[in-house]
Amino acid sequence: MGRAPPIMATFRTVKGFRDFFPEDCALRNYIFDTWRQVARRYGFVEYEGPLVESTDLYKKKSGDEITAQLFCFEDKGGRDISLRPEVTPSLARMATARHRDYKKPMKWFQIGPCFRYEEPQEGRSREFIQFNADILGDASQGSDAELVALAVDVMLAFGIQSEDFVIRLSNRQVWTHYLEDRKVPQEHWTAFLAIIDKIERAKPEDTAEKLGKIGLTLEDVRSFMASVDGNHPIFAALRADLEARGLWRYVRIDATIVRGLAYYTGMVFEVFDLKHGLRAVAGGGRYDKLCALISDSSVDMPSAGFAMGDVVLGILLSKTPGAQVGITDYLNTQMGVEAYVVVADEAQRAPALAAVQALRAAGVRVDFSLNAQKVGKQFQAAENLKARFALVYGAEYPQVQMKNLVSREQQLLPAEQIIHAVTEALKLPVTGPLIA
Amino acid sequence: MGRAPPIMATFRTVKGFRDFFPEDCALRNYIFDTWRQVARRYGFVEYEGPLVESTDLYKKKSGDEITAQLFCFEDKGGRDISLRPEVTPSLARMATARHRDYKKPMKWFQIGPCFRYEEPQEGRSREFIQFNADILGDASQGSDAELVALAVDVMLAFGIQSEDFVIRLSNRQVWTHYLEDRKVPQEHWTAFLAIIDKIERAKPEDTAEKLGKIGLTLEDVRSFMASVDGNHPIFAALRADLEARGLWRYVRIDATIVRGLAYYTGMVFEVFDLKHGLRAVAGGGRYDKLCALISDSSVDMPSAGFAMGDVVLGILLSKTPGAQVGITDYLNTQMGVEAYVVVADEAQRAPALAAVQALRAAGVRVDFSLNAQKVGKQFQAAENLKARFALVYGAEYPQVQMKNLVSREQQLLPAEQIIHAVTEALKLPVTGPLIA
Repeated sequence: MGRAPPIMATFRTVKGFRDFFPEDCALRNYIFDTWRQVARRYGFVEYEGPLVESTDLYKKKSGDEITAQLFCFEDKGGRDISLRPEVTPSLARMATARHRDYKKPMKWFQIGPCFRYEEPQEGRSREFIQFNADILGDASQGSDAELVALAVDVMLAFGIQSEDFVIRLSNRQVWTHYLEDRKVPQEHWTAFLAIIDKIERAKPEDTAEKLGKIGLTLEDVRSFMASVDGNHPIFAALRADLEARGLWRYVRIDATIVRGLAYYTGMVFEVFDLKHGLRAVAGGGRYDKLCALISDSSVDMPSAGFAMGDVVLGILLSKTPGAQVGITDYLNTQMGVEAYVVVADEAQRAPALAAVQALRAAGVRVDFSLNAQKVGKQFQAAENLKARFALVYGAEYPQVQMKNLVSREQQLLPAEQIIHAVTEALKLPVTGPLIA
Repeated sequence: MGRAPPIMATFRTVKGFRDFFPEDCALRNYIFDTWRQVARRYGFVEYEGPLVESTDLYKKKSGDEITAQLFCFEDKGGRDISLRPEVTPSLARMATARHRDYKKPMKWFQIGPCFRYEEPQEGRSREFIQFNADILGDASQGSDAELVALAVDVMLAFGIQSEDFVIRLSNRQVWTHYLEDRKVPQEHWTAFLAIIDKIERAKPEDTAEKLGKIGLTLEDVRSFMASVDGNHPIFAALRADLEARGLWRYVRIDATIVRGLAYYTGMVFEVFDLKHGLRAVAGGGRYDKLCALISDSSVDMPSAGFAMGDVVLGILLSKTPGAQVGITDYLNTQMGVEAYVVVADEAQRAPALAAVQALRAAGVRVDFSLNAQKVGKQFQAAENLKARFALVYGAEYPQVQMKNLVSREQQLLPAEQIIHAVTEALKLPVTGPLIA
């Protein structure tokens, strides 16, 4: 180890971007597979948008916070384009363009990278992977409930339990009604929601000052907020639905949740961990006007959805003991091989290669040494790759030694029986007999 | 249909980029799953690099053709960055940075998007998805053979047979030796390889003129080319290996194959369809010096690999009847749901929701109507989603009607038996009895 010269890192990963080495990539695939599996149980179908869109698409709908964070540039044809900071605008563009081809409601999900130029810190990188689930063409609280239920079941599927997370949920109309009651002019509503969005982090005196400018007091806002709970009639249908599913206990009504994006119109929610004070794991809500906006009013599809990123989720998984079992099980099935072919005598490389080929054709994961190696080194490689069986092609050929590397049992078999013996033995428990 | 106003496509996909609607996304996932499955059978492990790298990384190694096609821009921090046009430079950067952490040879694969600013046409878009498979840290022809075998097996796994494709293979050293023999100065070698790369498409008189400038004749080049076949000693070890695997018949030695990229040093190959005259489906080769170049000579890892894109492959799949079976089988398991819960009486929505939840928790793919709907419409939705079973929650509750939508058999069951009945029935053939 000490003798190699230090590596000159001539090239580095661009700030805020990530390398996925095999162990990172396996964890990423576990996250993808879990998202995909739960979404499919819910009857969602997968789609994907392009990673690049016209910058105008985001200027039109995402709001100022996101457009300030765009990776935007001009392509060689003079187009003003951006790496996507989120997927919902692409979804609305796609869904409105071809909405006649699909039955409503459209339950669609997506998994892929997004990009935002933010200062990298814990839980935040410039490239991250989002899982998006949306229901388009349905205005009912049944959709809202289905999405909240999906968010809960995704967390549970990761082994994150009721003591580890909560859904903080509200409805923007709670505030719309409040502002109407207080006769606050509509031009101040967006600014007001931005104040509420930051109310937990901002200094009370700053919040009070900002509220004062639009004719409100912090005291009144706070006392209204405290009055909004699960008995508010706006949540009645959602609550009945989630209670029937046994999932209401994961929900906490919280009027401070308004979401930063400009396009939400109704129910909004965020998923938070309860033990580590991390950023939101997921967030979403109802955006009934977005499809009309994107399509210049030609397609009006009430819709709702949420997104979950891989960065905060990854941190939460690493901090949650109950989440480790699923990860370990997954990695055990994903890494390594099932069988390793040992070429003990180079004169037998040809039949050994034929066996490698035949085993792989039978669907078995197989590795072997690509060139002449000592037998001990080959067995070491088999162990490193966690192979269950070693098949030794050597002096005994056309007899082949089959060895169970878990039970250490071994047996000499005619070469023509090897493929069948391995495929059958792989169906048995790991310490099972060599021949069924 | 005729009454809706025409859709104003306010926003479009950026030129050369693609939307993946659900049916496209399912086909894409089929391609990903097949790549992944075959690579894992070969003992390759998955990694992924960032989609964005320093532009310098490509300037240093990819050669002029690729750097002219870069999507490059300056980020807000003044960094000169590019969307990756290929993955090998990232792989070399990652592998050299952490090569001490992995046993050699490193058999790594990757699946993800790449970007090139080229004129879109059949088989070419500005964003495409590549499958990359590389073996790092092994200089033997055993690695070359393993990669060629993997390329063949990937094609076969897609249902593309020996009559549909061929591996056109050569070795750059064939030409190195030729140029040494003819005493052509090294400064002309790159230009010479570019001439050979285009020899099949260029006009003979243009090729002859270019060769003349470096002291060669087209006649001599052609007669040398014709002399290079499977008996050339440079291919002996590769041939013996692939013959032992029964795969040599997929290989055609072809000295015109040199590959455009600057970094190849030995074996090079491309995969071509035999019936439709498409662009290469895949290509790759040995690049023994790249890791040293990327790491300023601190890590010397002889390596080889190939990449296959999804665009030409997708066209070939659509034109190959034998490839359709695998696609159809895959789509049948990926789209739709297994069970549909019919709420025939809204008074029973709560137990129906509880059943939806319990079935999904048991891993069953379930859908239902999110709000009140006529029973006929709900059954229609069940059929559209290709559900095998409908479960009717109506007047008979706490008895539930379970209906096999394939065999039309139906049975009234107590609600508490439904979950077990469905999970058991799903294990039986589609027309099987309702109760095992």
